[in-house]
Amino acid sequence: MWSTMQDFPLTITTIMRYGTQVCGAVEIATWTGDGARRRSYAEVGERAARLAGALRALGVDGDQRVATFMWNNTEHLEAYLAVPSMGAVLHTLNLRLFPDQLVYIANHAEDYVVIVDGSLIPLLAPVLPQMKTVRHVVVVGEGDTAPLEGAGKELHSYEELLAGAPPEFAWPEIDERSAAAMCYTSGTTGNPKGVVYSHRSAYLHSLSVCTGNALGMSDADVVLPVVPMFHANAWGLPYAAMLAGAALVMPDRFLQAEPLVKLIEAERPTVAGAVPTIWSDVLRYTREHGSDLSSLRLVPCGGSAVPEALMRGFDEIGVRIVQAWGMTETSPVATMAHAPAGAEGERAWRARVSQGRVLAGLEIRVVGDGDVVLANDGEAVGEVEIRGPWITGAYHRDEDPGRFHDGWLRTGDVGNLSADGYMVLTDRAKDVIKSGGEWISSVELENHLMAHPDVIEAAVVGVPDDRWQERPLASVVVREGASVTAAQLREFLSDRVPKWQLPERWAFIAEVPKTSVGKFDKKVLRRRYAEGGLEVHDLTGF
Amino acid sequence: MWSTMQDFPLTITTIMRYGTQVCGAVEIATWTGDGARRRSYAEVGERAARLAGALRALGVDGDQRVATFMWNNTEHLEAYLAVPSMGAVLHTLNLRLFPDQLVYIANHAEDYVVIVDGSLIPLLAPVLPQMKTVRHVVVVGEGDTAPLEGAGKELHSYEELLAGAPPEFAWPEIDERSAAAMCYTSGTTGNPKGVVYSHRSAYLHSLSVCTGNALGMSDADVVLPVVPMFHANAWGLPYAAMLAGAALVMPDRFLQAEPLVKLIEAERPTVAGAVPTIWSDVLRYTREHGSDLSSLRLVPCGGSAVPEALMRGFDEIGVRIVQAWGMTETSPVATMAHAPAGAEGERAWRARVSQGRVLAGLEIRVVGDGDVVLANDGEAVGEVEIRGPWITGAYHRDEDPGRFHDGWLRTGDVGNLSADGYMVLTDRAKDVIKSGGEWISSVELENHLMAHPDVIEAAVVGVPDDRWQERPLASVVVREGASVTAAQLREFLSDRVPKWQLPERWAFIAEVPKTSVGKFDKKVLRRRYAEGGLEVHDLTGF
Repeated sequence: MWSTMQDFPLTITTIMRYGTQVCGAVEIATWTGDGARRRSYAEVGERAARLAGALRALGVDGDQRVATFMWNNTEHLEAYLAVPSMGAVLHTLNLRLFPDQLVYIANHAEDYVVIVDGSLIPLLAPVLPQMKTVRHVVVVGEGDTAPLEGAGKELHSYEELLAGAPPEFAWPEIDERSAAAMCYTSGTTGNPKGVVYSHRSAYLHSLSVCTGNALGMSDADVVLPVVPMFHANAWGLPYAAMLAGAALVMPDRFLQAEPLVKLIEAERPTVAGAVPTIWSDVLRYTREHGSDLSSLRLVPCGGSAVPEALMRGFDEIGVRIVQAWGMTETSPVATMAHAPAGAEGERAWRARVSQGRVLAGLEIRVVGDGDVVLANDGEAVGEVEIRGPWITGAYHRDEDPGRFHDGWLRTGDVGNLSADGYMVLTDRAKDVIKSGGEWISSVELENHLMAHPDVIEAAVVGVPDDRWQERPLASVVVREGASVTAAQLREFLSDRVPKWQLPERWAFIAEVPKTSVGKFDKKVLRRRYAEGGLEVHDLTGF
Repeated sequence: MWSTMQDFPLTITTIMRYGTQVCGAVEIATWTGDGARRRSYAEVGERAARLAGALRALGVDGDQRVATFMWNNTEHLEAYLAVPSMGAVLHTLNLRLFPDQLVYIANHAEDYVVIVDGSLIPLLAPVLPQMKTVRHVVVVGEGDTAPLEGAGKELHSYEELLAGAPPEFAWPEIDERSAAAMCYTSGTTGNPKGVVYSHRSAYLHSLSVCTGNALGMSDADVVLPVVPMFHANAWGLPYAAMLAGAALVMPDRFLQAEPLVKLIEAERPTVAGAVPTIWSDVLRYTREHGSDLSSLRLVPCGGSAVPEALMRGFDEIGVRIVQAWGMTETSPVATMAHAPAGAEGERAWRARVSQGRVLAGLEIRVVGDGDVVLANDGEAVGEVEIRGPWITGAYHRDEDPGRFHDGWLRTGDVGNLSADGYMVLTDRAKDVIKSGGEWISSVELENHLMAHPDVIEAAVVGVPDDRWQERPLASVVVREGASVTAAQLREFLSDRVPKWQLPERWAFIAEVPKTSVGKFDKKVLRRRYAEGGLEVHDLTGF
């Protein structure tokens, strides 16, 4: 028996219509360094229509990929609306990828147009000639376009294109399951992999972000996405803001503590999302200058684990940081670490330092060896798996199919789930060391080692071991002039972890290798060890 | 190009899993008159599984309709979860329908099982023999079942069925577009018509109710649905509460002001939804007894226009009433009349006394004669049309297809839309009088007439007129002992409305006929007039 309800699709077009028509007077402000330029959502709606018309005129008439190489600004929002709503696919290029990765993903996605901020031309120009499928480059704002010439692409001015296009566009009817946008993982293991969001997933994710257990967004909010729009949809904040009729404040390229604080004082956002390192800098600056962040009612924070000290520091100035967890493959918001209603003291903090509770609509579970589903008892540790309508079910071109099974995504994160749904992550699956049937957390060993006064950085990886299958190898960067030994570090650890977890193998290195987004690149360490490129002190038998 | 996202359905099963697993410790309290009985969501989850197993054993193995004839209580919630999640269709029978309407809809829907509260056996018993497709009657709680015997149905005890069923159920995979629940309109124009909700529509409606611009529900809330669960899903409050991990408080059959206030004082709900007449009674009782309603942060109110005096009265005791508008066909919540963020004084009140702003995801428009879409200028008046994923696209068995066109539902309500999306309703379309190309609002004439000190009730309907196509007929109930004439009433109106709107035809009646839910039944008046059953004073020529 079928229902009698309308078969109305869940699309970004609907988000755009609501934001630009019902909430047309709401404003989006883009920071210019010493102030903000402003447009109303109604104006953004007309400009999105013009952009769609201009892209159509450039030959975008199907699901071609239109890439953006842009900061967070009004024009990027216009592309967020126009490209998916015209039936094409938005591909947000991550400015921070290595040049060869940028070339790889532009070719892999088969980008046809690139919209680039004038200020980013120097970054794009060196790689543009190798982006084989790109035919058109559209330049937003000021900037010397000379470096783009000679790459064999047609160059256009964004504003000239919009001025020449009609102010209305016949937005097509779109199947909600068709592609709306693409984003590539940052690729700590092998090549970046493409996630293709649908209209449906973007809509449901945005709506979910607006609910009371997520950000509770309403038209009373002013939303500041510091997290880049080229990074997992800026956590869905731009679309969610439009669904809520909330104002937007965009930082453009001004991402250092000082301009961010000035922007917050001037524009008084109520919700602002960024990674922990940015909030650390903002907190330090605020303390030094007595700045006023009191407009913020909620600061979602994620991308890496949020230190408790950072949350307590913000609590002291009356601003609530709430940890969120997710990944490119989860749209990205999957959990939020609000304290349970009414919880105080230790109970509240235990929740707040966890990765949080899964958003309604998603399901999460912890799986042990042999894909056995473990109990949600706050103790059993395994790989976290997740499913739901805004979770990836495959990568573009079906790469790495082993990450998916039975309709679940293997997140690659290891942790446990409490009976009331709070998730505590302890490690990345690939970084867990499986020693004689027991799991050793590399992250825990690293955190203890980095607490040693002579240690600047420490990375622990599992290496093959005849007896135990795998054992930890600790690679340590020591403070200049310090003369700590491997035996002393092992002794230091022995007060902090069980004896069987103590590493036997130690290497002293100049620097821990990093990925393009600054994470420890452990596969490089494993390879160096395998190739004999590390000088290893072996304490076996000590 | 298709996305790579999981094809995960939007179902009530997901709502049930989230509520009963992630939020299993949250409680639902059902009022017993002098206290509450309680169950955790986890217990409700197990009991829903037992109920599904028991219904399967009774032969419910497809999309059979399982009807409920119940107050708001835990067992009704169990049916809300179990019936749709097992793939069957929940049909909530409206206790307040006339007996012949009850029989009509049970037969029209082809109900196979009826679950009935013991206290409601006396209401069900007289009509049960005529419910031809019903095979099983399941009685919840105490109650003399003797009156049900002899109707040719198998009788069961709810608790015995559950005790005999397994504590787990293999919930099937469900297509989100399949039927989840049915509700019949109250039928002010002809027979009741069936609306068949889908899993998808229920899910999206519930999620939307949780967003900041609707009720902003979170796990900090305790939700009291006074509005019956047999009436348009209790405005989606039960499902929304489970999606939010909010506690529920159910009033069962205790719907008078005194027990409601006691329940509010004891259980301290934060959100409570009911129609205006109930809140009027609660306000009066609260003033008389100095009761404490301070736990309520938000009171959604709808079903009929909310008087400004009622909202101001609640403001005085610190409780915020927010008007909501919708109908059975809209799941039902479609608009909410929060004041715009930051608005105060007259501007805020203008918004609050309107029917409000459309929820994100829905689209609304005003259509004039010849289906011309009118401007959203706060002035142009026409019929309101609406579309979106939780709006009905047809009635069960395709009855009354004229209510739907081009993917829009004609709401039958007449009003205007402001540029910022606020809707003001002035009339029901069928009650508007079209006189010589101009529209006369019957509601406005009635309101003016009822302000006359000698008038108790007044109903105005359009009747055929040779010259003007249609003219108003005013049917008036006067205070006992009063001797006001038609000419005097017309004179009274002439200071308040334009001359061309003044009724020529007047009737003095003993009582305005009402529908089963207490609304003016204007079709009866029109029929009486047509059949010459009214004594009409004709002032034409005055």
